[in-house]
Amino acid sequence: MTISKFKQLRRCYGFDEVAIVPGDITVNPDQINIDFKIENFTFSIPIIASAMDAVTDVSFAILMSKLGGLAVLNLEGIQTRYDNPEEILAEIARAPDAEVTPRLQKIYSQPIKENLIGERIQAIKRSGAVCAVSVAPANTKRLAPIAAEAKADIFVVQSTVTTARHISKSYRGLIFPELLKSIPLPIIVGNCVSYSACLELMRTGISGVLVGVGPGAACTTREVLGVGVPQITATIDCAAARDEYLNESGRYVPIITDGGFRKGGDVCKAFAAGADAVMIGSVFAQAKEAPGLGYHWGMSHPHPALPRGTRIKVGTTSPLEQILFGPTSVTDGSQNFVGALRTAMGTCGALTIQEMHQVEMVIAPAITTEGKWWQLSQS
Amino acid sequence: MTISKFKQLRRCYGFDEVAIVPGDITVNPDQINIDFKIENFTFSIPIIASAMDAVTDVSFAILMSKLGGLAVLNLEGIQTRYDNPEEILAEIARAPDAEVTPRLQKIYSQPIKENLIGERIQAIKRSGAVCAVSVAPANTKRLAPIAAEAKADIFVVQSTVTTARHISKSYRGLIFPELLKSIPLPIIVGNCVSYSACLELMRTGISGVLVGVGPGAACTTREVLGVGVPQITATIDCAAARDEYLNESGRYVPIITDGGFRKGGDVCKAFAAGADAVMIGSVFAQAKEAPGLGYHWGMSHPHPALPRGTRIKVGTTSPLEQILFGPTSVTDGSQNFVGALRTAMGTCGALTIQEMHQVEMVIAPAITTEGKWWQLSQS
Amino acid sequence: MTISKFKQLRRCYGFDEVAIVPGDITVNPDQINIDFKIENFTFSIPIIASAMDAVTDVSFAILMSKLGGLAVLNLEGIQTRYDNPEEILAEIARAPDAEVTPRLQKIYSQPIKENLIGERIQAIKRSGAVCAVSVAPANTKRLAPIAAEAKADIFVVQSTVTTARHISKSYRGLIFPELLKSIPLPIIVGNCVSYSACLELMRTGISGVLVGVGPGAACTTREVLGVGVPQITATIDCAAARDEYLNESGRYVPIITDGGFRKGGDVCKAFAAGADAVMIGSVFAQAKEAPGLGYHWGMSHPHPALPRGTRIKVGTTSPLEQILFGPTSVTDGSQNFVGALRTAMGTCGALTIQEMHQVEMVIAPAITTEGKWWQLSQS
Amino acid sequence: MTISKFKQLRRCYGFDEVAIVPGDITVNPDQINIDFKIENFTFSIPIIASAMDAVTDVSFAILMSKLGGLAVLNLEGIQTRYDNPEEILAEIARAPDAEVTPRLQKIYSQPIKENLIGERIQAIKRSGAVCAVSVAPANTKRLAPIAAEAKADIFVVQSTVTTARHISKSYRGLIFPELLKSIPLPIIVGNCVSYSACLELMRTGISGVLVGVGPGAACTTREVLGVGVPQITATIDCAAARDEYLNESGRYVPIITDGGFRKGGDVCKAFAAGADAVMIGSVFAQAKEAPGLGYHWGMSHPHPALPRGTRIKVGTTSPLEQILFGPTSVTDGSQNFVGALRTAMGTCGALTIQEMHQVEMVIAPAITTEGKWWQLSQS
Repeated sequence: MTISKFKQLRRCYGFDEVAIVPGDITVNPDQINIDFKIENFTFSIPIIASAMDAVTDVSFAILMSKLGGLAVLNLEGIQTRYDNPEEILAEIARAPDAEVTPRLQKIYSQPIKENLIGERIQAIKRSGAVCAVSVAPANTKRLAPIAAEAKADIFVVQSTVTTARHISKSYRGLIFPELLKSIPLPIIVGNCVSYSACLELMRTGISGVLVGVGPGAACTTREVLGVGVPQITATIDCAAARDEYLNESGRYVPIITDGGFRKGGDVCKAFAAGADAVMIGSVFAQAKEAPGLGYHWGMSHPHPALPRGTRIKVGTTSPLEQILFGPTSVTDGSQNFVGALRTAMGTCGALTIQEMHQVEMVIAPAITTEGKWWQLSQS
Repeated sequence: MTISKFKQLRRCYGFDEVAIVPGDITVNPDQINIDFKIENFTFSIPIIASAMDAVTDVSFAILMSKLGGLAVLNLEGIQTRYDNPEEILAEIARAPDAEVTPRLQKIYSQPIKENLIGERIQAIKRSGAVCAVSVAPANTKRLAPIAAEAKADIFVVQSTVTTARHISKSYRGLIFPELLKSIPLPIIVGNCVSYSACLELMRTGISGVLVGVGPGAACTTREVLGVGVPQITATIDCAAARDEYLNESGRYVPIITDGGFRKGGDVCKAFAAGADAVMIGSVFAQAKEAPGLGYHWGMSHPHPALPRGTRIKVGTTSPLEQILFGPTSVTDGSQNFVGALRTAMGTCGALTIQEMHQVEMVIAPAITTEGKWWQLSQS
Repeated sequence: MTISKFKQLRRCYGFDEVAIVPGDITVNPDQINIDFKIENFTFSIPIIASAMDAVTDVSFAILMSKLGGLAVLNLEGIQTRYDNPEEILAEIARAPDAEVTPRLQKIYSQPIKENLIGERIQAIKRSGAVCAVSVAPANTKRLAPIAAEAKADIFVVQSTVTTARHISKSYRGLIFPELLKSIPLPIIVGNCVSYSACLELMRTGISGVLVGVGPGAACTTREVLGVGVPQITATIDCAAARDEYLNESGRYVPIITDGGFRKGGDVCKAFAAGADAVMIGSVFAQAKEAPGLGYHWGMSHPHPALPRGTRIKVGTTSPLEQILFGPTSVTDGSQNFVGALRTAMGTCGALTIQEMHQVEMVIAPAITTEGKWWQLSQS
Repeated sequence: MTISKFKQLRRCYGFDEVAIVPGDITVNPDQINIDFKIENFTFSIPIIASAMDAVTDVSFAILMSKLGGLAVLNLEGIQTRYDNPEEILAEIARAPDAEVTPRLQKIYSQPIKENLIGERIQAIKRSGAVCAVSVAPANTKRLAPIAAEAKADIFVVQSTVTTARHISKSYRGLIFPELLKSIPLPIIVGNCVSYSACLELMRTGISGVLVGVGPGAACTTREVLGVGVPQITATIDCAAARDEYLNESGRYVPIITDGGFRKGGDVCKAFAAGADAVMIGSVFAQAKEAPGLGYHWGMSHPHPALPRGTRIKVGTTSPLEQILFGPTSVTDGSQNFVGALRTAMGTCGALTIQEMHQVEMVIAPAITTEGKWWQLSQS
């Protein structure tokens, strides 16, 4: 009986299972550069707001751009299905718990109005903000030209899992090299989680990759489909693909870790694992300016037969600027993400995000012992 | 002091500890074939209802067959001990918690009526359904001929642990090659969990193997006897035995993972671990059509001195068809198992169950952090 | 930087982290022999009641012997400090929680009456029972001759940790070869947990070793001193020492796993790990016949400055005979330990305890998901 | 695809995940020497009270010295910002939960009064106690001469992470060899957690190293920054650096494990991991004599934009002497730390702290099963 007959399983790690080791040199935060670049765009903070209807609308996208980051507008959600999205958002916020999933299924069954795509993009552009929009692969061929014509800056093709190759009977799969020829925009594609899938996506010529599928043990993709990889391992693997692709092509394609962030420490760990930027949903849904009115729901277009996103009451905590930059008087890591990142980089002696990729991380599982004062040790 | 003096322990994994990694290719669900074959029978869904009294009675078996799957009728339970099983099932449902175990012990001490075996089988057959029945090893020699004469299609020999060799003072052990000669039916045998025990069973010439002993840490076989192997490892090991047996014999004997399923993700993981089909109990006991009336109890014949099954209130959720195929508006994975399987296979680029056996899985433990909104992340 | 500079830590396992794998052959329980031998004494069940005041008094020792096992009377506890121990036991049972530790400290500060040692031993012997008694190392030289003179059958030297060599300024350490010459009884010594400490004890010529120090993560020795080894690993290591000693000396010295048992599954696992017998405390304190009146406290003589045993309300469940042999109508593994052991051995094809030592075990951690019906899966 | 492309993560361990293995020899506690030396100072117990405002004030430092240990006075806290620190401490204790973080931010924004530094030091010295004081790196050049002039005995430079090299635009980093020349005191520096950072600090010539950054999974540095290493691994690694430095220089620089201690077992484990002394905060904040009045807050000077310390109600348990030496009638390990250490060393046969460094430790995770009586096993 040779062990090699048996399927081998590799151990993966999530945010709560790892920690960053301080370095042998420390750096003052004022020395640190956290710029994020995607093609010709440079952002002063490497943080992107998710293409979710409870997170990004036109005004949130403008605000995020002003603060140095980026927000992605979902072109298949409420913003492009309804002339008056605020009404619909309020309806979702008011719906009783028991009715909300069918209500969401109904709301998202309304058709996308192509004229609204142009309107939303132009509203963002008029403010001077960088405009990023997202579409699922199945609708990309139809909607990408409209977005390009409306002068969107960055185009995101996103679904739970997106690969360079897709087999379908009903339609010809999306071919990224063809898409790249047809629209003159940087294209970010996702999500993926493995070395090989990420490498294959990069080889199609796209400009960025979103990393993250079913990151949390309790997230619905993991519950319903059993599919997912914890975010630290997914980020490490895709970062290795990025480095490999840089070796073979000379082109640096950034990876953006998407999903599962709850506090500053998680963000710092994603960069230590190899992320070039992070995409944040739930925490931004808590911002005063978020369109979700204190609620959040996951899927931009809940599946009619197999929904995987639930509406969750996240509450409203503070303005986006405070979440990003503080000051804060809470000590749970839910605010001042940028300050936390700079401080963590300082303790590691990392002057840039790329240097942060090199720091040591260790496996240091969270042992749940809540409610005991001694766990709140102070260093 | 050489380490080899010490007993070595291998790490095993259960459903909650692993996750499926999406593939480098994705496939539209409409391309996917999930047929399950056992000898000359082909089922359009690879899902089998357990031979438990709270799950399968005559009408449930007929319904399951209509929906494309299979249900196994327990020939040593209430259905063959009582002319009027509905009365007994209602009595179990009404029993107060404190009295239920002795009540079950008493109910299952009534003798099996051999005439009822024929009646139940014929009732299933008359509907056109495939009829599978199960018996424990000790009663097989007596009851198998009756089942064969009544034209059952598939014969299942099942106990907590069944092996190809059994040593007993009081009776001559069941010899599978002899049984195979005496009845002209495909025989499925179980349960087993190890490579060698599974391989030995297959070498007796039987047609299928049930995999699963004490799968959950809290299941009563583990508590009472300390015996059990988590289902992912058990499935991987028995799948290796199947592949080995195919190599040596040219015969493909399917394995059926039995026990511990709670949601779609678990089912998907079993196939990724190597299962050809899954056998489901508790979740089907929740179906509107289940004979258990919202209750479930494990053992078909609770041991008079060492009972291991408890009656559990599982409640009644929805019709069986909805559990299997949706549509659903719940997002916890408890409905639309077939849709979940097809979608998971799609994200892995698996066109058949056999291709699903090849997908990558990783160890990604569930960290319990219930009640925190951030765990309900949305991808 | 060589890794060998750093202290290496080996992973250890407790009852809840392992499970027994069924064998390739199964055996009917009626074929199985579970005798336990220590020198010329043979017991029909390999189960010993702890030398704790809440567990073993004279009548409990007699009952245990009648049922085929053994109980050890603590010679430094209430039974030998008080003419009328029942009064003291009732006082402990009645003491309010807040006062119980100082009360215990006071009760155990009374002197041992040497005449009571003889009385208790003779009361046990008169009934025809095998009489085992225990003393801590520091008192052994004084009390062993008294016990021998009173015709005790088996002498146990027990403290939290006992080694073959002890360094002390205040007294000359106990030398086991000397003790063996001075009293004509089989001597069992403990507790120990490591291969080398166990082997060294066996080489002194003693007749049995107690295995177990701080077995549970929450047990007080672990909390207060940080000292302890989980029981499965401790048993595996000491079993290796026994086998090594058998090789070098031709003498088989049984090991007795002591502490941490809560249910039948734990007992079965201890034997699969290599135990020749198990010593049980808390579960027997729940017996109707236990002297603790539904309470249990750990240490026979709580340390005046550093107490490690707390009084715990364990309640009273059923007669000892039912705990050992059933029948039971509970399904949590807390009754019918002998039936569970025979059944587990049957699923492993083990005809004797020595064959049970050879069965495969796996690491299969308990994932806590209490209160969810699906965990109560039924096989 | 070579695995070496991927970032490797080493597994780290905290107090709750390990246990000490008893030795092959045992020693009576009366034989054991637990002296701790730092340069010319010898302390009869290897325990140091943290430089936290809720733990150490002048009178606590005097008491700790009398009891054989050491306490470190924070020179940048309330004691040197306020003439009347008791008033401020009472204000903190009275502040409602919701207001306490901004209140702390305000309190710590008052300037340090240099005259108070001298006054506090002299008050400690007058009593005959050894006086240790601490300062953060940024203020060291300014405050160290004042402390030296006031005749402090030991100087501690402490921040969350301190390294031998610090890069800053705004000021020239602290150079330890220069500091050592400028003040004639033994200097202890920290905190650090890695082999290389610790070794580099020792090579600057300092006299002791504090070990511990974000030790607990729930501690705020881990939550907010993602930075931290569990204490057992941090101690093992820094102990290896100490031994390496001893090899290369002939100089023994002690390491002091700082943070995360809750009970006697934790203290014992730190020494088994290689600590020469332990620094304790929260548990001492519970002492009757602690200045925090039953409250504790972590940071000596909460960051204005990114606070990481929360005020926690720890309550008041007993006099410091009882926490250190007992007697106790509680059994949870929260009292009689010194007795626990001596007893644990006794079970390991360790006559000195250096011998305790050599004892075996194992990985034996805490499985949370609180509230179940059987976990409270008694050995």
